[in-house]
Amino acid sequence: MRKYFEVNEWKVIENGFDKKYNRVTESVMSLGNGHMGLRGNFAESYSGDSLRGTYIAGVYYPDKTIVGWWKNGYPEYFAKIANAANFIGLNLKIDGQKIDLAEVDFSDFKRVLNMKEAYLERTFTVQLDDNQVEVVEKRFLNQKNKELAALKYSLRSLDKNAKIEMIPYLDGDVKNEDANYDEFFWEGLEKENKQGKAMLSMKTRKSDFVVSAAMNWELNKKNRKVELLTGPGEENYVGNKITFEAEAGEKIELNKYIAVCTSRDYEADQVSKKAKTKVSEAAFRGYDELFTEHRDAWARIWQESDIKIEGDLEAQQGIRFNIFHLNQTYTGHDPRLNIGPKGFTGEKYGGLTYWDTEAYCLPFYLSTHSEDVSRNLLLYRYRHLEKAVENADKLGMDGALYPMVTINGEECHNEWEITFEEIHRNGAIAHAIKNYVDYTGDEEYIKEYGIPVLAQISRFWADRAHFNSRKEKYMILGVTGPNEYENNVNNNWYTNRMAVWTLNYTLENLEKIKENDPGKYKEWIAELEIEESELELWQDMTEKMYYPYLEEYDVYAQQDGYLDKEQKLVSDLDDKDTPLHKNWSWDRILRSPYIKQADVMQGVYYFKEEFDQESIARHYDFYEPRTVHESSLSPCIYSIQAADLEREEKAYQLYLRTARLDLDNYNTDTDDGLHITSMAGTWMSIIKGFAGFEVKNGQVEFRPFLPEAWDGFNFMIMFRGRRIKVDVNQEETIFSLKEGKNVKIKVYEQQYQLSQEEELVVEK
Amino acid sequence: MRKYFEVNEWKVIENGFDKKYNRVTESVMSLGNGHMGLRGNFAESYSGDSLRGTYIAGVYYPDKTIVGWWKNGYPEYFAKIANAANFIGLNLKIDGQKIDLAEVDFSDFKRVLNMKEAYLERTFTVQLDDNQVEVVEKRFLNQKNKELAALKYSLRSLDKNAKIEMIPYLDGDVKNEDANYDEFFWEGLEKENKQGKAMLSMKTRKSDFVVSAAMNWELNKKNRKVELLTGPGEENYVGNKITFEAEAGEKIELNKYIAVCTSRDYEADQVSKKAKTKVSEAAFRGYDELFTEHRDAWARIWQESDIKIEGDLEAQQGIRFNIFHLNQTYTGHDPRLNIGPKGFTGEKYGGLTYWDTEAYCLPFYLSTHSEDVSRNLLLYRYRHLEKAVENADKLGMDGALYPMVTINGEECHNEWEITFEEIHRNGAIAHAIKNYVDYTGDEEYIKEYGIPVLAQISRFWADRAHFNSRKEKYMILGVTGPNEYENNVNNNWYTNRMAVWTLNYTLENLEKIKENDPGKYKEWIAELEIEESELELWQDMTEKMYYPYLEEYDVYAQQDGYLDKEQKLVSDLDDKDTPLHKNWSWDRILRSPYIKQADVMQGVYYFKEEFDQESIARHYDFYEPRTVHESSLSPCIYSIQAADLEREEKAYQLYLRTARLDLDNYNTDTDDGLHITSMAGTWMSIIKGFAGFEVKNGQVEFRPFLPEAWDGFNFMIMFRGRRIKVDVNQEETIFSLKEGKNVKIKVYEQQYQLSQEEELVVEK
Repeated sequence: MRKYFEVNEWKVIENGFDKKYNRVTESVMSLGNGHMGLRGNFAESYSGDSLRGTYIAGVYYPDKTIVGWWKNGYPEYFAKIANAANFIGLNLKIDGQKIDLAEVDFSDFKRVLNMKEAYLERTFTVQLDDNQVEVVEKRFLNQKNKELAALKYSLRSLDKNAKIEMIPYLDGDVKNEDANYDEFFWEGLEKENKQGKAMLSMKTRKSDFVVSAAMNWELNKKNRKVELLTGPGEENYVGNKITFEAEAGEKIELNKYIAVCTSRDYEADQVSKKAKTKVSEAAFRGYDELFTEHRDAWARIWQESDIKIEGDLEAQQGIRFNIFHLNQTYTGHDPRLNIGPKGFTGEKYGGLTYWDTEAYCLPFYLSTHSEDVSRNLLLYRYRHLEKAVENADKLGMDGALYPMVTINGEECHNEWEITFEEIHRNGAIAHAIKNYVDYTGDEEYIKEYGIPVLAQISRFWADRAHFNSRKEKYMILGVTGPNEYENNVNNNWYTNRMAVWTLNYTLENLEKIKENDPGKYKEWIAELEIEESELELWQDMTEKMYYPYLEEYDVYAQQDGYLDKEQKLVSDLDDKDTPLHKNWSWDRILRSPYIKQADVMQGVYYFKEEFDQESIARHYDFYEPRTVHESSLSPCIYSIQAADLEREEKAYQLYLRTARLDLDNYNTDTDDGLHITSMAGTWMSIIKGFAGFEVKNGQVEFRPFLPEAWDGFNFMIMFRGRRIKVDVNQEETIFSLKEGKNVKIKVYEQQYQLSQEEELVVEK
Repeated sequence: MRKYFEVNEWKVIENGFDKKYNRVTESVMSLGNGHMGLRGNFAESYSGDSLRGTYIAGVYYPDKTIVGWWKNGYPEYFAKIANAANFIGLNLKIDGQKIDLAEVDFSDFKRVLNMKEAYLERTFTVQLDDNQVEVVEKRFLNQKNKELAALKYSLRSLDKNAKIEMIPYLDGDVKNEDANYDEFFWEGLEKENKQGKAMLSMKTRKSDFVVSAAMNWELNKKNRKVELLTGPGEENYVGNKITFEAEAGEKIELNKYIAVCTSRDYEADQVSKKAKTKVSEAAFRGYDELFTEHRDAWARIWQESDIKIEGDLEAQQGIRFNIFHLNQTYTGHDPRLNIGPKGFTGEKYGGLTYWDTEAYCLPFYLSTHSEDVSRNLLLYRYRHLEKAVENADKLGMDGALYPMVTINGEECHNEWEITFEEIHRNGAIAHAIKNYVDYTGDEEYIKEYGIPVLAQISRFWADRAHFNSRKEKYMILGVTGPNEYENNVNNNWYTNRMAVWTLNYTLENLEKIKENDPGKYKEWIAELEIEESELELWQDMTEKMYYPYLEEYDVYAQQDGYLDKEQKLVSDLDDKDTPLHKNWSWDRILRSPYIKQADVMQGVYYFKEEFDQESIARHYDFYEPRTVHESSLSPCIYSIQAADLEREEKAYQLYLRTARLDLDNYNTDTDDGLHITSMAGTWMSIIKGFAGFEVKNGQVEFRPFLPEAWDGFNFMIMFRGRRIKVDVNQEETIFSLKEGKNVKIKVYEQQYQLSQEEELVVEK
């Protein structure tokens, strides 16, 4: 496959411009800093195919839902991160010619995403009849001061003097491309336009978020004329039209400073004032100083989360691209935010939160950031507990059912087989608490915040299951497991197992608190109105849950009816069949034996200590040949398990399926945005798979191997205040403690002590 | 329950006007003649709540489908019978005061649907400050000359002379209330406006049906002024404004004649001419003559299909209401038409065709009309065979899958669990052929038209099932049975049984043709490309189909997982739970044991000869207490079976659930339109249930009983050119042959001979 982007260890480079690929490039070249994000659009207006996207974290519109046949319990709206005022825009005219790269001739086009320093740079030379003009655009969204962004727009007229018109502007009349009824999500509040600065304040309809964007600009050219362009009446537009004559060879440079503030952080009537103050301060500090603080923040991020791969430049670029975008999307500074499957890179899935966060992203943030980042991911769900209780109640159930898709705790999804039945998400949310506590040792979290979440989820499971008196077992009917290629099945093993796990973990922790802090225990029991009989029921369920089992294969079954299906394998499929979801009708997919993504194997992954290696191998060998991996979240789990089974080649093959998913646009859907959450899966394949990293009984463990295609790889692990460097090469693995206190580690089941004084070298 | 409509054996009477009930009344008072239909709207414009509905059979618009999450295989559009030009309209002003019953005072309001003569009459007296004006409106849609309609609008100013303005008009600027994107389905083609006559020709967008409505009017008042009102430009409106002075006490009478012609019957460019010619002829013949031919046609209908009930006026009105609307909806004159669940009485379900036709309506038409009417219902599906093959192919299947919902043979429904999985509809369509042939003896039908339909459906079943080598049985996975309260289940017994029945029936009939007409056999084998191996597979499937069975109850199971459900009964439900579809979320319904409508029992009903009475009773006693009857098609099947089991009181109770469904607005949804197809079910409860009527081995059989609440009932049965009157009273049943040749009949298992010479009296 020819690669569209140049392969480079720290950069993604588009050399020359392919209009047809522009939406993909825009996704790939997105910038974000946790507070806001921008697709890699051009600053100048562009009349070709493009999705101009500017998104502010947490600012959504409740878009009226669209559904063929209404079912009782469906949500009224699907929240969507609102495409916000375009603040990066800068229009350009040269000698009266509007510069629109869909219309004018140009050469030497290059768009470069610099991942190390987190900026986007674009250069091109406009070819006019009698002149050439070089243009360079550089932008970044400040990682330190998250409300700030800056654009440096430079040009040089090469052959002759040229009349230049530049219009830095703010434009709030933007729409979400995926609005269900083509609605406009915003209304204008306030606009201000002066020489050298402007401000636009908008409010989302219904959800009433105020977002104010302010800009200042400076130009290294004194002799100029400035005209104020303010949209008439209702129009939400402010711009400064700057005209001057550029001399041949002269370097013209305009810096545009932007501040974006929202009513999520300030009182609604203070937002526009804040934005204006912030942008003035930014302009005062200047472009270089802002960029320096931004770059330094990223240097720290890379210090903690980089993976360096030797001898495979494509893999190197791929993994850095993933780590880069994960860090752009979520920075953990705000517990009200979370991670959308597309981050700020597109509108698909509305920028909302799925169980991906707990199942795939949490491990990444645990190992690459300080603990408060992961804690904030957990607190996000804690804060939504009340909504989850309401959500369960809407379905006639006790306890809490967390939404499948949400931004504010309310369910947004509207397919019954997902919304009402894909209830295993509750399990992932409970299990994340265990992951976090096991990793960090922060037992207090459970006592303060974990218990109510665990108890309400347990309560939901207890109500959702029923006791089947014929089989004397508890059953959970009518569910969709992680394998969304089966709907409304009975006794999905993964779901049943997660339910029992939750009940057990809840009981265990209640017991612990009862022993260690009886007062707190009583408080919770009173507040949650837990009866003794309820605890007994939970206990009984853990003992009498029904698990579907396939005797002849000696493995757990996907669900009750799985073995009645025609038992074909992925290897029996024709090329024209795959991907199934594009080629087969839904009924055919559902009755087929093909599995979309790890399901039983997701459970075997979570609970591997309950299985011996032979049993894991049996499950793997049964399920992997039946799995089509049509979710980008699937290969990583299988890859880790293959690594665990010492099937190194297979582990590597599976890793490759997502290593460069977006960079190479494998699934031809990167135009919609990047697969942010699956990026965390790829990170897991390397760290949990190849390096065999785990935290067990409060201790880090490794069982590294080096894929044959690589010469070596190294990475950092953050663990309880420590920063551990792990360097895997062909002969050995070198562990060095870069920060923090001495720590015991296990490598290939052997115990070692690691200190800052000495590297630990372990041969394979 | 207070009844809104006055109880009367031949009429539905609204005495006084309840605005809030108007949509219900409009549905109830709908008129239709198989070619077109009108809701019972007022002729004058009315600004209160109303659904003005004018529908022309077979004239639809492919409305862009609405769906939350697209699935491969979904149809692009949902066809909708287009709300057509309002041709009945007539606006009225009295002394400059616009008569709008939402605005003016009036008294003595009465709206009467005369079912015997099939007209709607409305009377009221307008109360002005200084005058009273009596108004009478009468309308009918001609049952003989189906393109014609007429309105007689009379008034009398009681207290003084009055300036009257009357505007008979045609208005094509109408919308479907249920349009998915608020689209306008029509575009104007041609309008013509003259003194005394006007014409409006419209075309549906996309589907290109031309519909022309022409009107003529006559007024018994010479001294008048006529002004032509033609909508400007694009407006699709033509009207004649007639002004005159009415003397006190003088009876003013305007007759409006209407002809509606379509490009379904004429070349597109001839349609408007046809309409104009037809309306002129109608006006020439005059109101009384047109009404007489209309009334005579209805007299014949009643002669053939009436049921007379003694001693229960409510039941009498109820059953006539049902028979009346069935005959208004479908008259069998055109094999391109079919029966929508709401007929011409509302827009819900788009006026399209479901399996209701074969399962519920066909028996009614077989017994109450000449054979060609039922034959046309069958030919409808025969003509759509090619589309059904395409439809199966779209889902990756061999053979034919008839659509769940259609108007032209293409699938319109878009819920995967219905569209793709409710495949038992194929069985009903095949089984209708058997019903028809058993009833009429028309074996030639199978040879000419039945075979390809049966073979392609058989082929579909063969592909849709798979051989499960563990159980050495064929299975059909992932289906929705008639019980739509279970989705995506495995081995729905009814579906599996219908599949085997189809295969058997197809094989049998092929065998018969092979013996009797080897040439024809060869032709079919060649045309359908049937291989010997295919016939062997079909045979094998009939022998090795898997049927889920509940050992401990000794009954067939709904589906594989049914007994794993919590076994509760309808009697365990609280009032606040029902109807379930309004009170429970969909997942809760799906995992509950509650059954929406006859499913296993539908199969027991079709194949009752395979069950002994004890077994039928066992199935009935298992399933009926679990059935919530939330489809109006459910009680009739159970009622017939209760009758068969000689549980007469239960049979009567079940009959009551739908006897006056729309007249009493039981389900509070009659505002959407009438439950046309369920009306046939009620008819079945009486004829097949109470009278125990069946055709077996080419012979009619009866096992009548008289419900306790009734003094007697009598009805007609059309059977192979005969008209048999059956009169059930408290002591005996009297059979008389009114038309046709002598016939053998069986009553309570005894054989008799019936001739026109002599009544047959059988005591119970």
